[in-house]
Amino acid sequence: MILHLNQEIDQATIQALTDKYQAIHFVLENKHILVTPSKDKSIHAGDEKYVAQSWAMDSDIQLASSKYIPQKRRIAIAPNLIIGGDSNNTLVITGPCSVESEEQINTSAEFVQSLGIKVLRAGCYKPRTSPYTFQGLGLEGLKLLDKMRSKYDLKIITEVKDSSHVDEVIEYADIVQIGAKAMYDQGILKKCAKTNKPILIKRGFGSTLQEFVQAAEFVLSGGNPNVILCERGIRTFETKTRFTLDLCGVAYLKEYTNLPIILDPSHAMGYSYGVADLTRACIAMGIDGVLIETHPNPAVAKSDASQQLNHDQFKSLYQSMNAVAGAIGRKIV
Amino acid sequence: MILHLNQEIDQATIQALTDKYQAIHFVLENKHILVTPSKDKSIHAGDEKYVAQSWAMDSDIQLASSKYIPQKRRIAIAPNLIIGGDSNNTLVITGPCSVESEEQINTSAEFVQSLGIKVLRAGCYKPRTSPYTFQGLGLEGLKLLDKMRSKYDLKIITEVKDSSHVDEVIEYADIVQIGAKAMYDQGILKKCAKTNKPILIKRGFGSTLQEFVQAAEFVLSGGNPNVILCERGIRTFETKTRFTLDLCGVAYLKEYTNLPIILDPSHAMGYSYGVADLTRACIAMGIDGVLIETHPNPAVAKSDASQQLNHDQFKSLYQSMNAVAGAIGRKIV
Amino acid sequence: MILHLNQEIDQATIQALTDKYQAIHFVLENKHILVTPSKDKSIHAGDEKYVAQSWAMDSDIQLASSKYIPQKRRIAIAPNLIIGGDSNNTLVITGPCSVESEEQINTSAEFVQSLGIKVLRAGCYKPRTSPYTFQGLGLEGLKLLDKMRSKYDLKIITEVKDSSHVDEVIEYADIVQIGAKAMYDQGILKKCAKTNKPILIKRGFGSTLQEFVQAAEFVLSGGNPNVILCERGIRTFETKTRFTLDLCGVAYLKEYTNLPIILDPSHAMGYSYGVADLTRACIAMGIDGVLIETHPNPAVAKSDASQQLNHDQFKSLYQSMNAVAGAIGRKIV
Amino acid sequence: MILHLNQEIDQATIQALTDKYQAIHFVLENKHILVTPSKDKSIHAGDEKYVAQSWAMDSDIQLASSKYIPQKRRIAIAPNLIIGGDSNNTLVITGPCSVESEEQINTSAEFVQSLGIKVLRAGCYKPRTSPYTFQGLGLEGLKLLDKMRSKYDLKIITEVKDSSHVDEVIEYADIVQIGAKAMYDQGILKKCAKTNKPILIKRGFGSTLQEFVQAAEFVLSGGNPNVILCERGIRTFETKTRFTLDLCGVAYLKEYTNLPIILDPSHAMGYSYGVADLTRACIAMGIDGVLIETHPNPAVAKSDASQQLNHDQFKSLYQSMNAVAGAIGRKIV
Repeated sequence: MILHLNQEIDQATIQALTDKYQAIHFVLENKHILVTPSKDKSIHAGDEKYVAQSWAMDSDIQLASSKYIPQKRRIAIAPNLIIGGDSNNTLVITGPCSVESEEQINTSAEFVQSLGIKVLRAGCYKPRTSPYTFQGLGLEGLKLLDKMRSKYDLKIITEVKDSSHVDEVIEYADIVQIGAKAMYDQGILKKCAKTNKPILIKRGFGSTLQEFVQAAEFVLSGGNPNVILCERGIRTFETKTRFTLDLCGVAYLKEYTNLPIILDPSHAMGYSYGVADLTRACIAMGIDGVLIETHPNPAVAKSDASQQLNHDQFKSLYQSMNAVAGAIGRKIV
Repeated sequence: MILHLNQEIDQATIQALTDKYQAIHFVLENKHILVTPSKDKSIHAGDEKYVAQSWAMDSDIQLASSKYIPQKRRIAIAPNLIIGGDSNNTLVITGPCSVESEEQINTSAEFVQSLGIKVLRAGCYKPRTSPYTFQGLGLEGLKLLDKMRSKYDLKIITEVKDSSHVDEVIEYADIVQIGAKAMYDQGILKKCAKTNKPILIKRGFGSTLQEFVQAAEFVLSGGNPNVILCERGIRTFETKTRFTLDLCGVAYLKEYTNLPIILDPSHAMGYSYGVADLTRACIAMGIDGVLIETHPNPAVAKSDASQQLNHDQFKSLYQSMNAVAGAIGRKIV
Repeated sequence: MILHLNQEIDQATIQALTDKYQAIHFVLENKHILVTPSKDKSIHAGDEKYVAQSWAMDSDIQLASSKYIPQKRRIAIAPNLIIGGDSNNTLVITGPCSVESEEQINTSAEFVQSLGIKVLRAGCYKPRTSPYTFQGLGLEGLKLLDKMRSKYDLKIITEVKDSSHVDEVIEYADIVQIGAKAMYDQGILKKCAKTNKPILIKRGFGSTLQEFVQAAEFVLSGGNPNVILCERGIRTFETKTRFTLDLCGVAYLKEYTNLPIILDPSHAMGYSYGVADLTRACIAMGIDGVLIETHPNPAVAKSDASQQLNHDQFKSLYQSMNAVAGAIGRKIV
Repeated sequence: MILHLNQEIDQATIQALTDKYQAIHFVLENKHILVTPSKDKSIHAGDEKYVAQSWAMDSDIQLASSKYIPQKRRIAIAPNLIIGGDSNNTLVITGPCSVESEEQINTSAEFVQSLGIKVLRAGCYKPRTSPYTFQGLGLEGLKLLDKMRSKYDLKIITEVKDSSHVDEVIEYADIVQIGAKAMYDQGILKKCAKTNKPILIKRGFGSTLQEFVQAAEFVLSGGNPNVILCERGIRTFETKTRFTLDLCGVAYLKEYTNLPIILDPSHAMGYSYGVADLTRACIAMGIDGVLIETHPNPAVAKSDASQQLNHDQFKSLYQSMNAVAGAIGRKIV
């Protein structure tokens, strides 16, 4: 149950209500909000006077629910770079899997800027499953991204893989990406709740839609309203492709949540040959963005070599995006 | 290994080669073709004189492989209704889940014709998982479909669920649909190999892409070249939607096979609210057709009530299809 | 809803009730039984006089439900070979994947008899996923099994893969095995409902427990009470093993159904090295039987070579079975 | 590739070799060990003189591989409480899902001790998927466990959920449990590599066996040889049970790794009714331990209420364990 408290209510009463309802309390735009466990469906007799508005919810998908806020949330990546709301924008994000060197990330950033794309992606802390492979450049990588931001006037999205370096990523990124393997990490989620930067949460490949949106609830209920969901493929019995992009799940999220959705066809597919077709399919779904891996020379990439597009392949894909977006009344930004 | 034999070769030699290579033999356009187990990679010394052309293959995806025939196969639903080949056509098929009554199927057929759509779908033998639900009208349903074909000048696609009634379906259908639960049924596959009618094989929801295409090999190696693959959702851990439409798998099939692909977003989603978005995503993939369930009054449908679109919903979706197809250089037929 | 009708009721009334409740009617031990869709929960006013006893059910798991018959059904493979009921027996079935030749099946049968095992398994119609591999000996194989039955005084279990040969298998087998890929095949299920021979239904590897038990309902509601469930592994994201044996599912079936359960660890594992440990785990679950593939020489087997035990391996496993069964108060037969 | 370096080698050479092979270096029992990416299969010419012994490996399962150490690792929970090695011991661990209060954990600890069980489990940091449910007592819970350890002479296993509190858990636990949702968390894994306490890694429910064992490699290659694997159910399409216990995977781990294996049937099943049967199945597999949730009063438990056994149920199960273990030549400790 979500409760918007009345404006004039005092701190002691807020605390008493929070305790009584075993609720989470946060403040948003000067409004005091309580969220109780969803199994509670009604306000206790006598408490009506404290409550301006209330919503009983079906499950612990509460603040993210379209039952609470019917329209898609508006998120500003930059003052003039909006997704969600009434923008009809589909944001294109691209860049390499990992920051590998200054030369490599500079080539990528230059390419991204040359196309008019506004957001560069690249990982510095790589959540590899083996200790015997490239683990990322860490803080040094973050500093290179910072340099690219200034040099090419780009926004930066980069990934946090565990809570030991979450503060650094929040400091350097314009959009904080919580990796699929870290989706349940409350150490990360709770820190991301205390910033106002946009948080892109990738769905764990073994996570249900319910759990996915509940991860967003950790951030939202901590007071950060700027959460973006990112579907990037789930693990199924089919292994000819790396994962299975769950567009049925995306249809569900569009219907039942108020969060913008960005899709990552590169990780889902795992092979560059399918990325262009899948990207166009994603855009035709009417979603808020796509995140596509590109590399100046995929053959020598230190991670995810098989799925990154080279710059020519991406350019050709990029040119087709506007037509597809236009066919459904949306615009590529 | 696929062997195209020389034209002048006699029956006894063909038989001897078939036995020697433990091959399957069939004739297509007057050409004698042998298909051996794919683990055999080369012609025995001395046999070169019998073989016009040969292809060593990586797996038992052989006749369906793009390594054998690089371009997409051309399949004529009617003389002027083509998919695959160089047609760039995306075929729209619609109609109710089941034939329920003459009145119901007549309303559907009339609606389909009114939009200019050429192919009507409806099931007569329903592969229900419970014996205590509607099982379909059987032969009576086939006869009603036959009547609609004449009355509205439509082509008919209908489903076979087990080999006890395969002959009837082959007789009445223009496109024979092998249901997802029957994908492995060799009694059906072998009968379908002996007709020339187009065979649409639905992927079993628990079947790998490899097994899916190998089901097509049963039909192709029996001499029927007109096979269409239909992805309709696989079963995963996610249960908020009925199945998970596997578009990564579709990208794989487009790359590695020569078979036209039709997608069924209705069964994948299981709920009407997501069907329009998913259909547009499918079309943007650049595939050969979509199969969408519609019902004059979904609320009273005897099967799949939740996922069928009503006629107004479908009409609105249909109007958006041409724009999406056009954006990627294809045409709705 | 299951209705046991009163004894004195006449045919016309039975027919009227069947129609009225859209029920399935069958006769078992002179008792007239109706099974209605499970969504119907109560007898219409005025019909109480026709009904001796009734059970409202939660789902279309009805005749198989422990709510209907709380104890496990007793099934006689032979007059002195019982599973279920109060027998506490765990039946061991073994033999090769396929009948390959008279010599091979004779060696297997002789071995089986030498250990005192009563039931021989071997397939004649192989549901292979590729047309380019060994498809089984068909009717010739059934005749070889018939010979082994007489020669070694064994009971025979063999598989039906599609409804085109179901009559032959019913004629020759003592236990009819419905293969995992044929679990939904109503052509088979309905024929098996018309015999009294025990029917072992293998769970489809993509099938839910609900669908699995509903397949049994097709047989039970046709009048054959002798149904055995066989869990043989489901398909999951893990591919280091062939399938994933679902013992949690077995715990569910033991709790909620009245059907004996036989487990097939060979197909689940796919590799001989794990079969002994898994078999002991299965027996320790307290189930009604195990089905294990053995071959005189697995290295040359025409199907499932990697998972079949050789005779020495099986003998050693067999010797350990009694201790495990004894530890939980059961007996190997 | 694993390299055991010669004893007399100097630090500079070790560093040079580490760099040259892009290896991880650690010291165990005074032995310098390098682990290179597994794609490297041989020592460079001229380096033989530095290497006492080497193992080329098939995959990044290296230190955990039975190819490296064929026998099961011996791990001492306490000087006289051993699993693995040649012990033939199967360790029983039990206790509640969460520490809820001193009274509750005291009742549990007293019960555990009364049965002669040596290890108590209970969580303090709960990796809940919703922010609106009980999140655990945190440090206060660890202190209560510490008290129980002294009072009842027990060993304690408790869970770390993210790297923000890993130091505290390492300090208070006798066995550090890395939760299923944290299996990929390198912040945790790397800290656990720097202690010598036994680390129990739970398999992520969406994680492959390969990834699971690679998580262990992060700990092993950091210098802590005391790693235990814990299978606790994977996520599949079947939802009648909470997860699917993967005993085929356990057979794989027993064959290909050298790590002791403990099974958690409670989380796999999710319902108390199946836990006893599954526990006996696990023990019959010949594994090194079981971890079972019990609660003084499951009905009021703050987490996992449905799957916890009450003390009477557990006592009855516990009494049957010795017979099953004995049947396969093992002993319950």
